[in-house]
Amino acid sequence: MRTSHGDAGKESILLIADSESNADMLYATGLFVPDPFTYLKVDGKSLVMMSDLEIDRAREQSKVDEIVSLADYIERAQKNNAKTGSDLVNAISELLHEREVRSVLVPNQFPLGYADQLRGKGFKVQSKEDPFWDERPLKTDSEIAAISEVSRHTEDALRMAIGILSDARIKDGFLYGPEGLISSEYIRKKLHIYLLERDCTAQHTIVAGGIQACDPHNCGYGPLCPGEPIILDLFPKSNKTGYFADITRTVVKGPVVDSFRRMYDAVLEGQEMALSQVGAGIDGQEIHSRVEQVFDSRGYQTGTKNNRMQGFFHGTGHGFGLEIHEPPRISNVPQVLHAGHVVTVEPGLYYPEMRAGVRIEDDVVVTESGSINLTQLEKVFEV
Amino acid sequence: MRTSHGDAGKESILLIADSESNADMLYATGLFVPDPFTYLKVDGKSLVMMSDLEIDRAREQSKVDEIVSLADYIERAQKNNAKTGSDLVNAISELLHEREVRSVLVPNQFPLGYADQLRGKGFKVQSKEDPFWDERPLKTDSEIAAISEVSRHTEDALRMAIGILSDARIKDGFLYGPEGLISSEYIRKKLHIYLLERDCTAQHTIVAGGIQACDPHNCGYGPLCPGEPIILDLFPKSNKTGYFADITRTVVKGPVVDSFRRMYDAVLEGQEMALSQVGAGIDGQEIHSRVEQVFDSRGYQTGTKNNRMQGFFHGTGHGFGLEIHEPPRISNVPQVLHAGHVVTVEPGLYYPEMRAGVRIEDDVVVTESGSINLTQLEKVFEV
Repeated sequence: MRTSHGDAGKESILLIADSESNADMLYATGLFVPDPFTYLKVDGKSLVMMSDLEIDRAREQSKVDEIVSLADYIERAQKNNAKTGSDLVNAISELLHEREVRSVLVPNQFPLGYADQLRGKGFKVQSKEDPFWDERPLKTDSEIAAISEVSRHTEDALRMAIGILSDARIKDGFLYGPEGLISSEYIRKKLHIYLLERDCTAQHTIVAGGIQACDPHNCGYGPLCPGEPIILDLFPKSNKTGYFADITRTVVKGPVVDSFRRMYDAVLEGQEMALSQVGAGIDGQEIHSRVEQVFDSRGYQTGTKNNRMQGFFHGTGHGFGLEIHEPPRISNVPQVLHAGHVVTVEPGLYYPEMRAGVRIEDDVVVTESGSINLTQLEKVFEV
Repeated sequence: MRTSHGDAGKESILLIADSESNADMLYATGLFVPDPFTYLKVDGKSLVMMSDLEIDRAREQSKVDEIVSLADYIERAQKNNAKTGSDLVNAISELLHEREVRSVLVPNQFPLGYADQLRGKGFKVQSKEDPFWDERPLKTDSEIAAISEVSRHTEDALRMAIGILSDARIKDGFLYGPEGLISSEYIRKKLHIYLLERDCTAQHTIVAGGIQACDPHNCGYGPLCPGEPIILDLFPKSNKTGYFADITRTVVKGPVVDSFRRMYDAVLEGQEMALSQVGAGIDGQEIHSRVEQVFDSRGYQTGTKNNRMQGFFHGTGHGFGLEIHEPPRISNVPQVLHAGHVVTVEPGLYYPEMRAGVRIEDDVVVTESGSINLTQLEKVFEV
């Protein structure tokens, strides 16, 4: 008798997704697959159902307990005269019947079309809010090693880019290097190629100077200028492991005016305050509020001026891993940190009327006793 | 009186997705946004609901009729005491009520979590099978221009890579260039960097020689060898437009044995046959079957041998555009071509016991009178 199986209350887990864009699938299988496939977890045992094209690679590389052939289950469904539904859903239906599963838990992002087909076949399909895998925000040692590896490349890339700015000649208010005028686009391309050579992919890299740096989502365009703070915010993904790093430095080429220096020092002090506070059991909101106090006490006010936000108006940090934004947040919303969280610490100040923005960002692992800073890149403002 | 609005039978269109990974959203809005946002089409008029971060850019760049602020609708929902659901879904609910929409059509891939929340609020949410936008497979002139542009870069990149193979020195059965041993990985990296310099992103590029080329999904690893057919299959995306190109060439470095030459000539003849057949109103299955006949008549049999597929065992072609695989297929499944389809034509032959695979792939626009070949890259086997 298989009485422990098949009770209607049992909740198994079902995913249908590729594992290149879907981090929950990559996390579950440890396998990069560009096309959607099926993952099922029943009674703590995991399986994937793969097309013939990928099945051999899945057998070699995947960390699931069992691998079954999609073609086999499609054939069974056809033999059983499945009349409605796509081949894939019919194959999944066969598999669920075989494993005596009647109810599945799926991610919030699960495709509605498949869910409705499965419901039409009598299965209960219930979505779960993110994070889908409760343990995914808590990084293991090997995940931290993967993050450290891509961090090293990120730091080296930023060193290279800052070196270009440092070596630049100043002429008529612009910067020139061996290949001519230095623009945001030029530095961004240099960074992306440097990282691609190291099997990492960066997108949306911010190289923004002057007024552009006051909008934290402006990637930066056009010539870079001496004397203005330039924010370099780089968050590449390792193509090998899928893990991200996320590091920001702000530099000025040439002499720095006092007002910018004071702003930089305030951000650095805010970051040091935050870094000193991070630890298991600490509420991120408290850390964020301490950073705000540092800025307030130095006279850097936050609010709307001339219909535009200025001061410190984003979170102090966010978790990351297989995605660039993961739980937890260190922000004005209460959220307690746990050992194993890997988070950015990235306060910033932005004043459009000063035409200047400054942000400094390191990546840290939350531990029981505090935190470990994974970022070793030096912090130098004037280059 | 607004009697034309609000009838229960009216089907409006709703998307919630980012537009970097979701091609239907990019197609609808013409705007690259890395985070999910909302698109609604009612009575032929389109709108997007954007976060404050992206709203200015959306106003400048998006091709929709109206742009509304997510923050405004979240605020309204809070005023109306929305008690259940996420901020986003409550904002969408406000918007749908305002526009008197009770029923929405969504893509198959629409997130289940949002669909269930909207259903819980009394909306009808119905998914539609792909292609979601009926007109998306039919390319406009400006879309064809975008594909042509990324095609030029793809051709130039392949010329560069084939040049490296052509210039290589042969020593002890391997190929050497100015930077040492030439491997699949080396050529792939050269291609990817070349394309990144031209603002295109390539992934999963195939540079596979000898036995590896017999598996059409093997990307290729390790040193490349003289005398063996090397398949180069490159399908980058333009970061500027989002459109793909998809071109394959097969080359041999050094003298070619007759058996490989005959195989190459057969594939070329198969491709020329297919190219001559493509046109509006033609069934792709018929084209595919003609290619099979070319191979059969030349003695190249398809089937399983030693538990492995050999011969010509993939489709003759597929549509592409904002995704690398789009309708229609030119394969053993009936599917009629229409003017405006842009498809690959890529027959191949693969014989593991010969340790050789050959594939040649061009991109063509289907026209009323036949087709236009967008690919101008020369076809040279021995380099």
